[in-house]
Amino acid sequence: MTGTSPTTVETLRWTGGRDGSLRMIDQTRLPGECVEIECRDVEAVFEAIRSLRIRGAPAIGIAAAYGVCLGLQSGNGACDNRDLQRDDRNPHEFQDASFPLACGEDRFHRRIEEVAARLAESRPTAVNLFWALDRMRRTAAELRGKLSPAEIGERLLGEARAIHEEDRAMCHAIGRHGHALLADGAGVLTHCNAGGLATAEYGTALSVFFAAQDAGKRLHVYADETRPLLQGARLTAWELKQRGIEVTLICDSMAAQVMREGRVQAVVVGADRIAANGDTANKIGTYGVALLAAAHEIPFYVAAPSSTFDLSIAGGDEIPIEQRAASEITHGFGRQTAPDGIGVYNPAFDVTPARLIKAMICEKGLIQPVNRETIAKTMRARP
Amino acid sequence: MTGTSPTTVETLRWTGGRDGSLRMIDQTRLPGECVEIECRDVEAVFEAIRSLRIRGAPAIGIAAAYGVCLGLQSGNGACDNRDLQRDDRNPHEFQDASFPLACGEDRFHRRIEEVAARLAESRPTAVNLFWALDRMRRTAAELRGKLSPAEIGERLLGEARAIHEEDRAMCHAIGRHGHALLADGAGVLTHCNAGGLATAEYGTALSVFFAAQDAGKRLHVYADETRPLLQGARLTAWELKQRGIEVTLICDSMAAQVMREGRVQAVVVGADRIAANGDTANKIGTYGVALLAAAHEIPFYVAAPSSTFDLSIAGGDEIPIEQRAASEITHGFGRQTAPDGIGVYNPAFDVTPARLIKAMICEKGLIQPVNRETIAKTMRARP
Repeated sequence: MTGTSPTTVETLRWTGGRDGSLRMIDQTRLPGECVEIECRDVEAVFEAIRSLRIRGAPAIGIAAAYGVCLGLQSGNGACDNRDLQRDDRNPHEFQDASFPLACGEDRFHRRIEEVAARLAESRPTAVNLFWALDRMRRTAAELRGKLSPAEIGERLLGEARAIHEEDRAMCHAIGRHGHALLADGAGVLTHCNAGGLATAEYGTALSVFFAAQDAGKRLHVYADETRPLLQGARLTAWELKQRGIEVTLICDSMAAQVMREGRVQAVVVGADRIAANGDTANKIGTYGVALLAAAHEIPFYVAAPSSTFDLSIAGGDEIPIEQRAASEITHGFGRQTAPDGIGVYNPAFDVTPARLIKAMICEKGLIQPVNRETIAKTMRARP
Repeated sequence: MTGTSPTTVETLRWTGGRDGSLRMIDQTRLPGECVEIECRDVEAVFEAIRSLRIRGAPAIGIAAAYGVCLGLQSGNGACDNRDLQRDDRNPHEFQDASFPLACGEDRFHRRIEEVAARLAESRPTAVNLFWALDRMRRTAAELRGKLSPAEIGERLLGEARAIHEEDRAMCHAIGRHGHALLADGAGVLTHCNAGGLATAEYGTALSVFFAAQDAGKRLHVYADETRPLLQGARLTAWELKQRGIEVTLICDSMAAQVMREGRVQAVVVGADRIAANGDTANKIGTYGVALLAAAHEIPFYVAAPSSTFDLSIAGGDEIPIEQRAASEITHGFGRQTAPDGIGVYNPAFDVTPARLIKAMICEKGLIQPVNRETIAKTMRARP
């Protein structure tokens, strides 16, 4: 595994130029193995997102942006319409990175729409996915007629790289803004994985912990294992251990007891989509943790970059909630753990109402109190 | 598998007379296999309780009572002190069920204490264990000097059978008292397994559902899977399915969302120990569910026989909470799901304060409101 430092996770990376490929850590194989997979076409990216090889709202957005670039590569279906069979093509086109140019401007831009539409179907809840795809489409649309498809393809790769780099910077900024909320020696609880693996690097919720560590504070993190897919046990515990932060793994059902015993002074989680009023969709279980924190008068914080805010949605009721397969619950541990033929309910996310969130930690600063006005004001601000 | 009806689970049963043995369903193998194991000595019962082959406060009490009988059998260590080697013994003694008589009265009663002390070490939280062992010891003490050890041994088997039968009757009475709390068509949520498998038959919380069904009501039960050992997924879902009650399995972290969606009109759980003031120890996660129910204004009920009440304990803080092995969380079902070397916290129980419990459902009737006075009054009443 490569990384900017031995303790920093490089969740995903683009190798090569426009004809390059996307490499990412296959998170379904952690913590047993840390291996990279290579995505060479749109379907590979689609599958990686759908099957959670890459997950976490910001990381999904980055992967999708690079996925658009893959969809515009020679031979990657960029021209595979009925009137242009592969056998009929000029072989030269396939070796030439400017292949889409040869396909004509209309077809090039249609292809961008087609790829973006496909990738948008991979998961329904995380807004960063749509945000990143929109940004790619807008970039192409703005340059249409001004630059050739080949040049626009180059610019799109640059845009994907920019989304990637900006996310890295946003994560670090979130950590800087957030760690002041945590005292030295504090116990903190987090749910799911809002770490480096969910982003370009450092993460959102975990960035707050990493920044606290960088500032010389010692934290004790309680990580909810996060059923059904155990992102807390597999990913958060792994990342924190890599960074030398003290971590105690608990089952989700133990959070209330840990709070009652006074072990936790703050809760910090990430987000998949935040409505204009502050209602926050995040991994299933987050809403329950927020209620438990409220019952114990423990502050509950959401850490997320501005790309996670969806101001087009007034409140949490409008956020679509992905339903996932029953087998994630009944066959999650490599062995059947429930009888055949019973009903299963498996929503992937829930919505925590703004009133339960003491503050939001954004790359543009803290949002507190959390309401429509403070969110709108922060989103308008320059970072 | 035998049972009083095809859909009734016979959790445990004594076969034979004083020289008989204890058979029980090995609950660690459900729902994959439904097989009985046979316990022929005290250590087998100890191991079965410790490793949760038999679990549930009432069932543990019954198993322990029969365990005392096993400890008094010929050849089962009843006389295995240093000065009486097996080879020196009269072979006749070993064929004679009255063997302990030959050992002398003192030694017989010391053996009862020894066996009870050993079984009391198997698990620390469920009070029914200590209650059943005390009842066996008291029975022997009261008869000492009046009856021979052989006769007392016979009476002790009768006492164990009585504990078993009384539990069966208590469970049915709990169902009768409790089902009036549930309307036809209601959604109900339960945590862990307080079913027939946790008792002689029918269960405590599940008895309420079964009695509602017997009364012609249709319920929809949401079963928390109950990490780490998945008693909800493995046992509750299985029992409800066996009985034809509609059941939907959820992860523990989904309870809040299910409540928020209005799917649940009541929560019913069992108990492992109830203090004089109504504070209730039950499977880890119960306290969190009670808080979530309160936040959604959903009534939260505890169903338990009077043997689960421990009036010697003023409040929940005095209830010892068993801590279990980290591997239950990190290696739960045949696969490692967390990195090596991280900290794990694994309390087996938590305590739900009385203020969160709308009513208790006891074989002696409903206890509502839940406080020291109503509990004391109910415990004094005849069933």
